[in-house]
Amino acid sequence: MKARVLVTLKNGVLDPQGKAIHHALEGLGFAGVNDVRAGKLIELDVDESVDDGAIEDMCRKLLANTVIENFRIERVA
Amino acid sequence: MKARVLVTLKNGVLDPQGKAIHHALEGLGFAGVNDVRAGKLIELDVDESVDDGAIEDMCRKLLANTVIENFRIERVA
Repeated sequence: MKARVLVTLKNGVLDPQGKAIHHALEGLGFAGVNDVRAGKLIELDVDESVDDGAIEDMCRKLLANTVIENFRIERVA
Repeated sequence: MKARVLVTLKNGVLDPQGKAIHHALEGLGFAGVNDVRAGKLIELDVDESVDDGAIEDMCRKLLANTVIENFRIERVA
């Protein structure tokens, strides 16, 4: 079974990578972009026995820094 | 309007970051994880006038390296 973990910076945390992407998009002439935030995507291929609680545990212990980051778990098929 | 761009490495491309995460999860005692792939998440806040074609253009020109990466565009609300 596949699961996706989306790790994003919390609101209020500075995101220089997102700012750089935003600036580069403008430099390339793309209009209408108001904001860009960069985050991480971690795709896990786990056994059926692994439940959401276990994945949340992985996020808290390793995948996300919960001081500055939020995470969201999505199951894919 | 918000859009998410999910950038993942193509199959067959080595993913040392994913391997390191996998190894670390095993070291922490998490069982049942078969594979881990690391990717990027880019959240765009764009005007309503920006359509999927424009976002795909951004991906091809800047956000993803299409030689080694796939990208997927998802609209959020």
